[in-house]
Amino acid sequence: MNYVGIDIGGMSIKGGIVNENGVISTKKTVVCEPDKHDKAIVKDIAKLIDALLEESGVSRFEVCGIGIGCPGSVYDAEGIVRYSCNLNFRNTPMAELMADMTGIKNVKVSNDANCAALAETLFGAGRGAKNTVMVTLGTGVGTGIIADGKLLTGNRSAGAEGGHIQLNIGGRKCGCGKRGHFEAYASATALMKQVGEACEKHPESLMAKMAKSDGIDGKTAFNAAKMGDKVAVLTIKRYLKYVGAGLVSLANIFYPEVIIIGGGVSNEGEAVIAPLRSYVQKNVYGSEYNPKIDVVAATLRNDAGIIGAAALCF
Amino acid sequence: MNYVGIDIGGMSIKGGIVNENGVISTKKTVVCEPDKHDKAIVKDIAKLIDALLEESGVSRFEVCGIGIGCPGSVYDAEGIVRYSCNLNFRNTPMAELMADMTGIKNVKVSNDANCAALAETLFGAGRGAKNTVMVTLGTGVGTGIIADGKLLTGNRSAGAEGGHIQLNIGGRKCGCGKRGHFEAYASATALMKQVGEACEKHPESLMAKMAKSDGIDGKTAFNAAKMGDKVAVLTIKRYLKYVGAGLVSLANIFYPEVIIIGGGVSNEGEAVIAPLRSYVQKNVYGSEYNPKIDVVAATLRNDAGIIGAAALCF
Repeated sequence: MNYVGIDIGGMSIKGGIVNENGVISTKKTVVCEPDKHDKAIVKDIAKLIDALLEESGVSRFEVCGIGIGCPGSVYDAEGIVRYSCNLNFRNTPMAELMADMTGIKNVKVSNDANCAALAETLFGAGRGAKNTVMVTLGTGVGTGIIADGKLLTGNRSAGAEGGHIQLNIGGRKCGCGKRGHFEAYASATALMKQVGEACEKHPESLMAKMAKSDGIDGKTAFNAAKMGDKVAVLTIKRYLKYVGAGLVSLANIFYPEVIIIGGGVSNEGEAVIAPLRSYVQKNVYGSEYNPKIDVVAATLRNDAGIIGAAALCF
Repeated sequence: MNYVGIDIGGMSIKGGIVNENGVISTKKTVVCEPDKHDKAIVKDIAKLIDALLEESGVSRFEVCGIGIGCPGSVYDAEGIVRYSCNLNFRNTPMAELMADMTGIKNVKVSNDANCAALAETLFGAGRGAKNTVMVTLGTGVGTGIIADGKLLTGNRSAGAEGGHIQLNIGGRKCGCGKRGHFEAYASATALMKQVGEACEKHPESLMAKMAKSDGIDGKTAFNAAKMGDKVAVLTIKRYLKYVGAGLVSLANIFYPEVIIIGGGVSNEGEAVIAPLRSYVQKNVYGSEYNPKIDVVAATLRNDAGIIGAAALCF
């Protein structure tokens, strides 16, 4: 069976023909032009789908559904993108427009973090689990939650905003404007801020020297730590304790089989994952009576969005 | 249709014959003897059920199921009470034992907070909602969650421990031994501690005088505030901010239609509920694009446990 999966990002729109086993047979990417009107972007996506079908030799009658993952606030049940930070989507009836443009009636839309969580749960790092929480540590902190085999979205799909749970009342300012949220401590952006502060405090450290010559990015602390810099090691340790605290909150609510870590920070592999795993297993509520919760890195990487979008239609 | 609902507490065991509309026709209570062996307690419950059937004139062939709500860690799918703080339940196969003793095969068991949430959602303060979070502010902070019409329990029913989400890293010690949890700030016990501290700081306050003469309980601050004591007003205000912060975390994850407040503190009515409602509506993520989340007091009170337990079988 053939499905189309579309992953809308601020820079590019990725599309693929995906089968029921989560395998992408054909893949294509077009540039996303965020200044365009919403309908123009939808038209670009429809063209991308045309190109995918042509290249794969799949006819539109053989497509069982189109799934679309989009950043921002999506109302899944009605296929409406209410709002997207970097794109001109404002109550855009995405599913309806796409069905009209392509003649394919089964169109599902959801938030991109939800799609990634769905893909990783069905075909990636969480395969076989019925309960998973995926936490993406990037510019912000995104969460996608599968509870008892189903995507958890809340009323009008407004939930699953796990980046905005409280970690520290009155603490650091979050991207959303409020204070003390998980995201304000655990995003890659937050890590970079923590690295900057540590460098100011310890200008003699290797990390500070590296920051001075190359600037700070999400890898700075990890690179310095690999070279034995103690300030970097301590900065990472504290950062991972913040991440761990947020994971434990989510684990106490969902008690998933697996917590999946995605985003740039997860590329550091076991240097990040192992301490998080041990923190969660040590601090989750009721762990003495219950099976251990595993913490793993996402495995599907850039394909998760396409596969998960397609899986909305499964 | 007739169901039996059983609500096990540390002091008493309540039972009722409940119909599919959540109406209790016959109700009975027996003393719970927590020092007894688990099987002896189950036998007491079976006797209670016998008495209920006799008094109501319902034969056991007319009972569609027995539902049991129990404090502690319950594995719903297998009807096993793994652990209960004040009772001698240790991996007690409650459903199996009860089915053997009563001859009624359909026996369901769940945590008592889950039962209360189910009852309030189906027949009480959350009636008509598909997504609700019930937060019980008592000795501890219990949470029961209905997501998309279904009780959320997590892997092996180990989740829904919303009292143990992080509020303040490294903060006050929680009943579970860890620090900074919601429960450590928002339970009635935590309120009493906060009242004690305020009284020490302000021995001249009316609240301190009341505490000195009558001791401190969950009502002390509210009674003093009603009489115009400013220290009490500020103590309550700060306490409700803690409660609100935890509710917002849960709201950002579940975006429920309704948050239901139960437990002793909720008896204060709008003095507690109105500030919490306004805090949640002001601080929840994405509220500008989404319907308002209501915060209400539980309405079924002591019957919620019986009704919700019965509803496990609906």
